[in-house]
Amino acid sequence: MAVIAIDLGGTKSSAALVSPDGSVLIRDKVEITRKSGTLVSKILQKQIQTLYTKALRSGQDVSGIGVSVPGIYYSQTGHVWAPNIPGWKDYPLQQELQNTIPDIPVKIDSDRAAYILGETWLGAARGCRNAVFIAVGTGIGAGIMVDGTILRGHADIAGATGWMSLTPTFRSEYTRFGCFEYHASGDGLARVARDMVNEDQDYYGLLRNPLPEHISSYDVFEAFTAGDALAQEVINQAIKFWGMVTANFISLFNPEIIVFGGGLFGPAIQFIPLIIKEAQRWAQPIAFNQVRIEGSKIGGEAGLYGAAKIALSVLSEE
Amino acid sequence: MAVIAIDLGGTKSSAALVSPDGSVLIRDKVEITRKSGTLVSKILQKQIQTLYTKALRSGQDVSGIGVSVPGIYYSQTGHVWAPNIPGWKDYPLQQELQNTIPDIPVKIDSDRAAYILGETWLGAARGCRNAVFIAVGTGIGAGIMVDGTILRGHADIAGATGWMSLTPTFRSEYTRFGCFEYHASGDGLARVARDMVNEDQDYYGLLRNPLPEHISSYDVFEAFTAGDALAQEVINQAIKFWGMVTANFISLFNPEIIVFGGGLFGPAIQFIPLIIKEAQRWAQPIAFNQVRIEGSKIGGEAGLYGAAKIALSVLSEE
Repeated sequence: MAVIAIDLGGTKSSAALVSPDGSVLIRDKVEITRKSGTLVSKILQKQIQTLYTKALRSGQDVSGIGVSVPGIYYSQTGHVWAPNIPGWKDYPLQQELQNTIPDIPVKIDSDRAAYILGETWLGAARGCRNAVFIAVGTGIGAGIMVDGTILRGHADIAGATGWMSLTPTFRSEYTRFGCFEYHASGDGLARVARDMVNEDQDYYGLLRNPLPEHISSYDVFEAFTAGDALAQEVINQAIKFWGMVTANFISLFNPEIIVFGGGLFGPAIQFIPLIIKEAQRWAQPIAFNQVRIEGSKIGGEAGLYGAAKIALSVLSEE
Repeated sequence: MAVIAIDLGGTKSSAALVSPDGSVLIRDKVEITRKSGTLVSKILQKQIQTLYTKALRSGQDVSGIGVSVPGIYYSQTGHVWAPNIPGWKDYPLQQELQNTIPDIPVKIDSDRAAYILGETWLGAARGCRNAVFIAVGTGIGAGIMVDGTILRGHADIAGATGWMSLTPTFRSEYTRFGCFEYHASGDGLARVARDMVNEDQDYYGLLRNPLPEHISSYDVFEAFTAGDALAQEVINQAIKFWGMVTANFISLFNPEIIVFGGGLFGPAIQFIPLIIKEAQRWAQPIAFNQVRIEGSKIGGEAGLYGAAKIALSVLSEE
């Protein structure tokens, strides 16, 4: 027995046949950059067919299909919203995928939900029932597990951590991204660096070389490593915000663990001791003493493992 | 059939016999100011006995006892922590109360839990499954309901909202109260006003009359109503923080409703339209459009109703 897991990102769809103990048996990866939503749905259907056929050929029965989408899954309607896939504003993905192999149940969830399911199943949060996964990539989101269940909220959009307000001075730019995401996402680091370079005419450091509008978070980390003062300021500011948000999660949720993952953690994993130090200043002290704060150990696989867990959870419900 | 509900505060214990539809049948109120923890436990036992006897005499059967405590209830041990009751650091309250009338189940929970249970049962949040009660009194706490269940966290101390970090500039005073509570609780308003009066030698307004160390939140509201500029600044700062926290709850929890209660709401209920306006600037916009933000309609009764609901919930579990 095995399940089909699909971790759909903004640029590729990573699918796999996964056994109930978390072993990845067969993989199937397809690029989806700049493809229409309808085509992406067809690609997923094809991946399901391919893995199903290969599973049967290798003598494996497929008992469920789990899909992680980069956005929101509306459990009431089976529709999805994914800002980076053209046409997926309210797309009937569950129905379309369910038609592929009608007998095998398809279950979809958001990438945030998949990350925390993957981490609590096979990652740093293994076995925890109260856990938070903070995903810092281009944007910021969080998967939150409360007493063993994913926090969804009234309409499936809970965990919009990028919108945390962390400084009383409102800036109109927050309207697009949220305050925390504006300052401390991957794009945020680049944005803050760009603004600083533009404002500081006396700065002739490493980040002066690319045109300011081309500075990426990668450039910031590189300049930081080389000892650039401006890059250090950008990183220090992000560490403060990452620490404050960590503290807020600790005080509100009293979790066993907070896991940092996503593209930036990654290179920012070296700052976790500083994030912990910052969080300690702000958090409710008893709750702080009960939490672990770690980087993801399964990194890019969290979404795939989570998708497998989504498929497996259907079985345990039935 | 009825239940005994006890809403224990820092200064009094309000008990009542409550019917399953929420009618208060008999009341019993006792002052507990400056009494030892052991004595407070004895007072509660006596209240239980009194109400039980009166119930039987009036032909009512008592099926459960619910108690709200001003602190933390540790569900694993049955012990409580209540900072304002001397000796209740880790006090075996469940066991002591259960011995009063052994046949009738006693269930204890924190005041935060009681408030949100009361509000979702009979108050502004009636029938909601995702709801937040922000209690602003001397201190600040929150009762959070997630999909119909109280958020407790790993060790029953979730909801420590007073510790939310809302400004990057850390002050050592936050170590005692938390950032949000330092600025925007009842004591916080008085503290901020005191600091401003001390710093502003040119201020000769209404808050110059009491010695600065005697300024209370009541004085601040009175001065505000009379148009005092310093009091207005204090209140405006609090509105900003109340709005930011409201936004953070909206973005993280995607709730149906946020209810403001506690001693300050009360007089601060007039500011709810401004709090909503501030929250709208910061919150995830879709989640903002799905939430109601209101003052408590059951006010001082939320804890008592919640305690009754705690007792009733035992019945529905069995």
